[in-house]
Amino acid sequence: MAGPRDAATRKADSLAMLATPAIDVWVATASEADGPHLVPLSLAWVDGRVVIAVPEASVTARNVARSGEARLAVGPTRDVVMIEAALDRAVAVAEDDTLGAAYAGQADWDPRNDSGYVFLVLRPLRVQAWREADELAGRTLMRDGVWLV
Amino acid sequence: MAGPRDAATRKADSLAMLATPAIDVWVATASEADGPHLVPLSLAWVDGRVVIAVPEASVTARNVARSGEARLAVGPTRDVVMIEAALDRAVAVAEDDTLGAAYAGQADWDPRNDSGYVFLVLRPLRVQAWREADELAGRTLMRDGVWLV
Repeated sequence: MAGPRDAATRKADSLAMLATPAIDVWVATASEADGPHLVPLSLAWVDGRVVIAVPEASVTARNVARSGEARLAVGPTRDVVMIEAALDRAVAVAEDDTLGAAYAGQADWDPRNDSGYVFLVLRPLRVQAWREADELAGRTLMRDGVWLV
Repeated sequence: MAGPRDAATRKADSLAMLATPAIDVWVATASEADGPHLVPLSLAWVDGRVVIAVPEASVTARNVARSGEARLAVGPTRDVVMIEAALDRAVAVAEDDTLGAAYAGQADWDPRNDSGYVFLVLRPLRVQAWREADELAGRTLMRDGVWLV
């Protein structure tokens, strides 16, 4: 057993995980009327933002448009990166070539081939990373949008 | 490529996954004040209910007590069982020996050794299972608490 990772290692591991090709993210959103929503989606990590692509009419898109917030989990349950994020912007997938290329370059599908999809660009406010119970202490790596390490 | 699984296979696979020793579940809850919450927790599958153990004062316990609902995901992002669930009951971990033994028998920890924990017994209302995009059709296996297959 290696024991708990230090903060610098957790940050490096988290950034590596976020940059992994074809990695997915659990996206939790909520609305007052319908409560919690949760879906797995493909992720791109672009300029320090989590980018997902969803149908404009999806529950996730509507919830994020209304509340401006999402809670994200990347990795398996015992090696997680948890992110509280705020919506920076939503943009139709055909309208930002740079973003579209970055997304398609990391994800294993290209939403620009489908109609009605939007990119949601989500800015991390809090980032936490832990594996097992011995890593619950020291799990917060970013607070109020600022890396602590 | 085997192609999409039929409904009976998805149900059997889902039940097997839920009964797996030491398996975890992503638990999404929400409150009007604080929006979405998401945590990974150990799961037990007891008499057709999803049982989790959380501190009584945790965000998850408070959200579920208030709203009576949670959205659950079991399995990796490309082999998921998604469950919309309603709270059947919350019980202090020391107060139900049968439930405690069942939980400790499947999970790889025993919350009865910690103070302040409650079991949340969650009744599935909707169950969906899919692996990749070719399984999105036919993903609903339970609706309004009734298995469709």
